[in-house]
Amino acid sequence: MKIIPMILIGCGGVGRQVLHHIVSCRPLHAKQGVHLRVIGVCDSRSLVAASDVLTTELNDKILLEICHVKLGGGSLSNLSNFGEIKLFFNTEAITKVIDIATLLGKATGLACVDCSASSDTVNLLKQVVDLGCCTVLANKKPLTSTIEDYNKLITHPRRIRHESTVGAGLPVIVSLTRMLSSGDPVHHIIGSLSGTLGYIMSEVEEGKPLSQVVKVAKSLGYTEPDPRDDLSGMDVARKALILARLLGQQINLGDIKVESLFPKEMGPDVMPVDDFLDSGVLSLDNDIQERVTKASSRGNVLRYACVVECSSSRCEVGLQEFPRDSPLGRLKGSDNVLVVYSRCYNERPLVLQGAGAGNDTTAAGVLADILDLQDLF
Amino acid sequence: MKIIPMILIGCGGVGRQVLHHIVSCRPLHAKQGVHLRVIGVCDSRSLVAASDVLTTELNDKILLEICHVKLGGGSLSNLSNFGEIKLFFNTEAITKVIDIATLLGKATGLACVDCSASSDTVNLLKQVVDLGCCTVLANKKPLTSTIEDYNKLITHPRRIRHESTVGAGLPVIVSLTRMLSSGDPVHHIIGSLSGTLGYIMSEVEEGKPLSQVVKVAKSLGYTEPDPRDDLSGMDVARKALILARLLGQQINLGDIKVESLFPKEMGPDVMPVDDFLDSGVLSLDNDIQERVTKASSRGNVLRYACVVECSSSRCEVGLQEFPRDSPLGRLKGSDNVLVVYSRCYNERPLVLQGAGAGNDTTAAGVLADILDLQDLF
Repeated sequence: MKIIPMILIGCGGVGRQVLHHIVSCRPLHAKQGVHLRVIGVCDSRSLVAASDVLTTELNDKILLEICHVKLGGGSLSNLSNFGEIKLFFNTEAITKVIDIATLLGKATGLACVDCSASSDTVNLLKQVVDLGCCTVLANKKPLTSTIEDYNKLITHPRRIRHESTVGAGLPVIVSLTRMLSSGDPVHHIIGSLSGTLGYIMSEVEEGKPLSQVVKVAKSLGYTEPDPRDDLSGMDVARKALILARLLGQQINLGDIKVESLFPKEMGPDVMPVDDFLDSGVLSLDNDIQERVTKASSRGNVLRYACVVECSSSRCEVGLQEFPRDSPLGRLKGSDNVLVVYSRCYNERPLVLQGAGAGNDTTAAGVLADILDLQDLF
Repeated sequence: MKIIPMILIGCGGVGRQVLHHIVSCRPLHAKQGVHLRVIGVCDSRSLVAASDVLTTELNDKILLEICHVKLGGGSLSNLSNFGEIKLFFNTEAITKVIDIATLLGKATGLACVDCSASSDTVNLLKQVVDLGCCTVLANKKPLTSTIEDYNKLITHPRRIRHESTVGAGLPVIVSLTRMLSSGDPVHHIIGSLSGTLGYIMSEVEEGKPLSQVVKVAKSLGYTEPDPRDDLSGMDVARKALILARLLGQQINLGDIKVESLFPKEMGPDVMPVDDFLDSGVLSLDNDIQERVTKASSRGNVLRYACVVECSSSRCEVGLQEFPRDSPLGRLKGSDNVLVVYSRCYNERPLVLQGAGAGNDTTAAGVLADILDLQDLF
């Protein structure tokens, strides 16, 4: 039986789902000859660790209890009296993770799985990379930190996986990595990589005012609590940066041309979210509708797209027109799509399309990534 | 530097292209810390091997000379006076491959890469699997032999790769494998997996007679020398079988319902190929055109599809109607497409589309497979 010791960082929606998948897939993984041995779980302030990380693990009962506590909005510290576990808080938690990584990194191996949405994990991840550990990320922030941080994280390209950072579980990273490693040079990629903006633009295309669509999307839970986090395009820019760096561009987030769907004077620093939703967004309706109509008169539709060109190092995200009968033009609802042009996919591109959001799909991508590391253990 | 010793079986179009890619990607692979060490190349009758497989290899000059000789229609035996190599013929060649696999299999490791189109390699491959070697296949025949042979070949699922057996370089196998391993159960898949039949059906859809389309396709080199090898659907059936087995169905080729586009009395055993092209195929024009028209009247188009359903163990290939505005309905030219429904990709499926044929693309898939085995070396 191949054993993969792992620490999970972040147990919000995706992290919880990863734990659920690990527990429910035990029989499947046993059949595959693999055991995922969870020895620690962190939330933003605490670490729950197995009492002896070399010989014990967080059993399924504890993992499900962690899910239960986190689902209820609780903290891992609520677990203090639960079974054979040890709790560590704040900086002590980080120190303990480093201790574990030092102990296991070069011995049994260790996978650090970052399912948080925090920009604070990058320093920890850089250290565990140095200690010989593998990393799996659903968290985009560490990979969109400075280029120096990025290059450090990918020091050993075979020890890092991050499929779920772009397009949830869609096989985007694995496909590009295969093309690159086989010497099929990627020329450029075009993607619609935000389920939220995909949904918004396909609703606006049907004639609904942007303001109304944004409110409905928010009420359905499709947007972040402050929808400007989606409308700013910064989430798409981070995905574009991850893809551009994968394709070899040594650039930073600031180098990407990003089109925001609202002007600076409506930004989160200037205008409260309620004001934005009550009045700000209304003033954007006409402009967007005009652009949609203009595109339509040319047989096109408007999409919030990400474009990475390898020859020119162009990397930008924003509204673009696409022919109605193209992979991006045909997109409906919250589906994501990535279109890849390379030497092999030249006249007719490689197209990857499907659900690009959802905790279940994202967590499945994380799990596939962990299992794909098994030959290193 | 990670070294992957490998033997290439089959140096027709795909095999030659693999050798070319290996030579031209040397700088890229060096940067990745990998060296593909080719120690033997087989054609149908001969093996060219390095003089000492433990310490020497077929250098780039020899590999390119092999490509040159094979491109000219020659045999590997023509190489006898070329550099530090040894030649083996017929059964001696097979014995030598086994000897090499015995020597290297459990020591340095060895990848046996089957780019032939032969059904005779399966016994050799089963033996090298037993000897601890990895296998990479572009050849569909071994994987579509009996279920016993198949199960033997996949004894160690991590040591076998066969992306290029279905959809050339399209990330079909890797995507399905990731879904299965992460516990996202695949419900059913629908694919258009023959570039040749894809081309033929989209031409027929435009009103051209089947007989004419087949002749043009043959003259363009899109079909096999005897186009009935494509029109029989057996090539698609083999791909369907590979996918069905990957999804867990313990079935054989004979269990698949296959629709042939010509009747038995026009089969290769009964009718010479020239008679088929001169007269036989003409008699099929009306029937196909009627079906196309009937489909069109319902807003549908006719495609030669492969369907695998996991719940019912249904596996069939043949002509089917699809809505014009569906992934298969939209397909143009020789593109392949695979549509996957699973728990995660439920209402909106995962769609993988792109060039599904061509030696360059197929060889790139083989190379990516070999490199993906590197952690086992």
